[in-house]
Amino acid sequence: MVPPLPTAPGPLPPVLLLLLLQLCRGLRAEDSGAMEEIATEKEAEESHRQDSVSLLTFILLLTLTILTIWLFKHRRVRFLHETGLAMIYGLIVGVILRYGIPATSGHDKSLSCSQEDRPFSTLLVNVSGKFFEYTLKGEISPGKINNVEQNDMLRKVTFDPEVFFNILLPPIIFHAGYSLKKRHFFRNLGSILAYAFLGTAVSCFIIGNLMYGVVKLMKLVGQLSDKFYYTDCLLFGAIISATDPVTVLAIFNELHADVDLYALLFGESVLNDAVAIVLSSSIVAYQPTGLNTHAFDAAAFFKSVGVFLGIFSGSFAMGAVTGVVTALVTKFTKLHCFPLLETALFFLMSWSTFLLAEACGFTGVVAVLFCGITQAHYTYNNLSVESRSRTKQLFEVLHFLAENFIFSYMGLALFTFQKHIFSPIFIIGAFIAIFLGRAAHIYPLSFFLNLGRRHKIGWNFQHMMMFSGLRGAMAFALAIRDTATYSHQMMFSTTLLIVFFTVWFIGGGTTPMLSWLNIRVGVQDSSEEDLNETHWRVGVDPDQDPPPSNDSFQVLQGDGPDATRGNRTKQESAWIFRLWYSFDHNYLKPILTHSGPPLTTTLPAWCGLLARCLTSPQVYENQEQLRDEDSDFILNDGDLTLTYGDSTITANGSSGSHTATTSLEGRRTKSSSEEALERDLGMGDHEVSNRGTRLVATVKECFT
Amino acid sequence: MVPPLPTAPGPLPPVLLLLLLQLCRGLRAEDSGAMEEIATEKEAEESHRQDSVSLLTFILLLTLTILTIWLFKHRRVRFLHETGLAMIYGLIVGVILRYGIPATSGHDKSLSCSQEDRPFSTLLVNVSGKFFEYTLKGEISPGKINNVEQNDMLRKVTFDPEVFFNILLPPIIFHAGYSLKKRHFFRNLGSILAYAFLGTAVSCFIIGNLMYGVVKLMKLVGQLSDKFYYTDCLLFGAIISATDPVTVLAIFNELHADVDLYALLFGESVLNDAVAIVLSSSIVAYQPTGLNTHAFDAAAFFKSVGVFLGIFSGSFAMGAVTGVVTALVTKFTKLHCFPLLETALFFLMSWSTFLLAEACGFTGVVAVLFCGITQAHYTYNNLSVESRSRTKQLFEVLHFLAENFIFSYMGLALFTFQKHIFSPIFIIGAFIAIFLGRAAHIYPLSFFLNLGRRHKIGWNFQHMMMFSGLRGAMAFALAIRDTATYSHQMMFSTTLLIVFFTVWFIGGGTTPMLSWLNIRVGVQDSSEEDLNETHWRVGVDPDQDPPPSNDSFQVLQGDGPDATRGNRTKQESAWIFRLWYSFDHNYLKPILTHSGPPLTTTLPAWCGLLARCLTSPQVYENQEQLRDEDSDFILNDGDLTLTYGDSTITANGSSGSHTATTSLEGRRTKSSSEEALERDLGMGDHEVSNRGTRLVATVKECFT
Repeated sequence: MVPPLPTAPGPLPPVLLLLLLQLCRGLRAEDSGAMEEIATEKEAEESHRQDSVSLLTFILLLTLTILTIWLFKHRRVRFLHETGLAMIYGLIVGVILRYGIPATSGHDKSLSCSQEDRPFSTLLVNVSGKFFEYTLKGEISPGKINNVEQNDMLRKVTFDPEVFFNILLPPIIFHAGYSLKKRHFFRNLGSILAYAFLGTAVSCFIIGNLMYGVVKLMKLVGQLSDKFYYTDCLLFGAIISATDPVTVLAIFNELHADVDLYALLFGESVLNDAVAIVLSSSIVAYQPTGLNTHAFDAAAFFKSVGVFLGIFSGSFAMGAVTGVVTALVTKFTKLHCFPLLETALFFLMSWSTFLLAEACGFTGVVAVLFCGITQAHYTYNNLSVESRSRTKQLFEVLHFLAENFIFSYMGLALFTFQKHIFSPIFIIGAFIAIFLGRAAHIYPLSFFLNLGRRHKIGWNFQHMMMFSGLRGAMAFALAIRDTATYSHQMMFSTTLLIVFFTVWFIGGGTTPMLSWLNIRVGVQDSSEEDLNETHWRVGVDPDQDPPPSNDSFQVLQGDGPDATRGNRTKQESAWIFRLWYSFDHNYLKPILTHSGPPLTTTLPAWCGLLARCLTSPQVYENQEQLRDEDSDFILNDGDLTLTYGDSTITANGSSGSHTATTSLEGRRTKSSSEEALERDLGMGDHEVSNRGTRLVATVKECFT
Repeated sequence: MVPPLPTAPGPLPPVLLLLLLQLCRGLRAEDSGAMEEIATEKEAEESHRQDSVSLLTFILLLTLTILTIWLFKHRRVRFLHETGLAMIYGLIVGVILRYGIPATSGHDKSLSCSQEDRPFSTLLVNVSGKFFEYTLKGEISPGKINNVEQNDMLRKVTFDPEVFFNILLPPIIFHAGYSLKKRHFFRNLGSILAYAFLGTAVSCFIIGNLMYGVVKLMKLVGQLSDKFYYTDCLLFGAIISATDPVTVLAIFNELHADVDLYALLFGESVLNDAVAIVLSSSIVAYQPTGLNTHAFDAAAFFKSVGVFLGIFSGSFAMGAVTGVVTALVTKFTKLHCFPLLETALFFLMSWSTFLLAEACGFTGVVAVLFCGITQAHYTYNNLSVESRSRTKQLFEVLHFLAENFIFSYMGLALFTFQKHIFSPIFIIGAFIAIFLGRAAHIYPLSFFLNLGRRHKIGWNFQHMMMFSGLRGAMAFALAIRDTATYSHQMMFSTTLLIVFFTVWFIGGGTTPMLSWLNIRVGVQDSSEEDLNETHWRVGVDPDQDPPPSNDSFQVLQGDGPDATRGNRTKQESAWIFRLWYSFDHNYLKPILTHSGPPLTTTLPAWCGLLARCLTSPQVYENQEQLRDEDSDFILNDGDLTLTYGDSTITANGSSGSHTATTSLEGRRTKSSSEEALERDLGMGDHEVSNRGTRLVATVKECFT
């Protein structure tokens, strides 16, 4: 089903940092086996020691980064984000490794035996009567054969690109899905999907075509020394269209910038990662038939579209299914009595999503994203209080380490990667192309979306989205996946520069840009953020529970005169979402979790027995509160979507002038629909504390 | 410095599960590279899919184990422990893989080119003009060459033994060190060290010599078909002398069995793992000169002893140093304001211990153990409340997964390992030898220790220790490390059987044995254990805070008439410990943590400035309470060591008859020395809550 990229995929554990292990993979193959000669043993020992040293280098790099991050946070430095910092440290170490360490050749690669056939994956070599097994490592271009006596350390810190895909990205992506602020995400779902799918596709094709023009130009002026196909340009478009959620959002979060803008940017960048992966796979699938054509091949194009849809929906289904299975398992066992078991199960099931998708030929990373979303939406509700914080914290640590590792590796790669091709024309062209590509989807799409949205996406939001399109880990991982050919090497080098530029300049420019565009930021100082973190310690999850000042806006306005007007608008526009919501609320939630209305009331009478089996006893307790508010909530929902934010949102008369000071009052007068909303989309405090007490009370129940 | 084992070591990240990745390492080497042919691509894709499937197998195995563990805990089944269970599932899957899947040959290993020299680590092969790189995988014994068309799946689930050492063991061992119940451990330190060092050495030599007799016997009856040296026998002794802390202690913990017995067994098994590793390395170092001698070689012996001491002390120092560095970093930065950074730093520093030790030629696993102990003793006190639970939980999950993975892999290995040699005589001999070896150190050592101890180790305790010598992960990892020769293969197969037998029978027999030997167990039911787990959620650590009923014993008796008598005894016996304790308490604790007396009072006057710089401002707050109790505590300490337990401890008149019912009262009348003890060795509730409030209060301080 899935066309693997030329440098074919390896095994795919989504756990993390262990990739570091992979660093030295090449060497380990030499190590194992029974070479009793002391010389060999000494060599192996030496090589083993070097491996440890190279791993240590990375760890010290990360440690240094962490300490500097702390210093920056402590001193509230915002012009450089931690990811930018990690890259700078990586760069420095890269320079040292490149120029500071004398070139040594530890390897005796010399024997060449000729054979006529295609390469075997395994060779048996007879050495004075003993047989040794060799495995194929890869092709070496003829020019490089005499070039093998490189810096040994340099070889060691350069490692298998698949590691990024298979080990580092999954925890990052899973964390993105798992920590999604569902409330805001789902409210802007339509716009997010539009930006992510249509936007990425548009951006990919525009960049691809522009770059094809650039390549033609380069050919004209004689700057191109090897082949560069149309599909390569499209692939570059796909690679570079994946925007990164990391830096801008970290700053948004820190500044408590507008939650809707946050939701739009976050949703877009998370989903467009998935879209970009699948898009690039589809383009590779398109390649074999179109290898020598520059022309447009309709059949291949539709095949690619088919592959795209197939992979995407398959991966989506895979992720959703494992999420649902985990939810069922955690619901129908009393596993929550043993948080350690629960966490381990959760971890393993999430990991197996990735493997399952890869085993079936889908894209593991995409599956993991949707698995994360499903786990957060259903399974999370079934977990014990301890497991909730445990799983969050576990993935948070994994995510943090993986992310910083990728960024410091990027810095390192600029100097240690052996096959850079920097072409000024291509690089300048690429910068212009990504700018135009982003402009060409943000502004038109926003225009069309604004036709449908009652609360328009203002110009300042559009400019901010335009500005925030920085590229990061995903673009790098996609680009490093295949650096075998000339065109791919040039694309890799260019991607690297784009990542550097955008992370440093856009990341650093976010704060000034926000104030320049008059986008309101909640000017709480960081100590509040830390109080939130303290808060989190006792099991309440800040992700699910936005800062009170934002909350109050929403509540005040939900109560306001718009509420009734909102009902009509909602009914006109987002009927699909409403349909899904009521299906989710009436059937999925009760089946998969302990919340929602009892199935006995929502299912038709003839499946009463089944309904009774599936409904959790806890549901009946909550039923009273839930039932009457429910329909109300659905209708109100659309209204709430865009009412908060600030006065710069044009369409809505309610400005943000009666603000944070009324927060307390707002909380007290919380409308009932808002409560239902919080319960259902957000899992607010209420539910958590509810479960918390229940858990302690039902400890005895675990052993019955 | 360190003589690596013949199958030389690989890269060494102590993180976990990622080993699974290694599973398929051999195959990945084939995958990478630029083989553009579609046939190769298809093959790579297929192989990649198989990799995913084989990893999925392991994950499903673990998932199944977790669910069954839950069921067992739920139904309070105690005759089979989870590790035993994991082995059974592993066995079943092993049988299926071995006999259920038809043998396929996916690999075209056929080409043999001859060369005369010793094997190169890398080959270049010219295939119709293109050059391909091959790396050495290992030697293949001539008999196996035609045997390569094996079950493909079987090849894939059999993976690099170094993985156990370098990825799975470190988190297990670190966790053991980090979660050490320091209070009880340090009180029994002398006995524990005696059992671990002397005991393991005695056991190793006795087993080695007995097995040498068995080997001679086998040679006589013609059961031995290849060489088996004296050093091999000693190596077997070292391998099999490592007892496993897992199963018995899990049951002890669950039953709240006697804490002293627990401390003795736990301390012994944790430390003797380290001793066994270093011992086996030393024996391998002994081997090269003694390769063909059966006789005793004094020079080589002393060299081995030297190597042993060198490696052990080096590894110890390495672990302690990184622990101390982490403590200093966490003390002197305000990193505790950002728990995520703190946790990441903690994790990286602990990992770097392992790498640092390996890079310097010491033993990473041993270094990690002592690093864990140091981190728990010093760094833990500097961490924020959230990081405390985060780090505990992180390592708990890693430990849990690694442990269950090892045990299920053991089950799998019985059927999937290709080179088993089961020799009935050797196996029976080995069982007798380990029995005698354990008897020969437990009883004599206990006798000698009892001469020095006022509170003797009773016969029932000795029998229990004798019985509890089950072998587990460490023995397996040591045995699988080198299975190249005939003797090592036989040792591996025998070790596997011993592990199976001991885990199933000793693990299952622990509960009956405890009651048969009249060893008191705190008959709290498991729901209390769960309440403890609930308790833990809010940040109080049950490890540091033993169950109240045990505590009360101790307190009651600490207050009793023995207290004064104890002072004298203590002064006579454990002066080294006392010296260390006061040094630790007066200098190390104040330098490395926020607790202890201010350095300004303990250091001589002339280093006043330094003392003021190093002393944490928080120290002065606690000073009042601490100072006056301190000397008292040290003297009382020895007394407390053996007073609790039960009436079967002979020397002490105070029996356990006034028991758990007085627990509440005991708490209330807690002596002040006990409080100091708790503060210093145990970090009780008091300190935790203290810090908890302080943290919230000092949030603003983080940004000054």
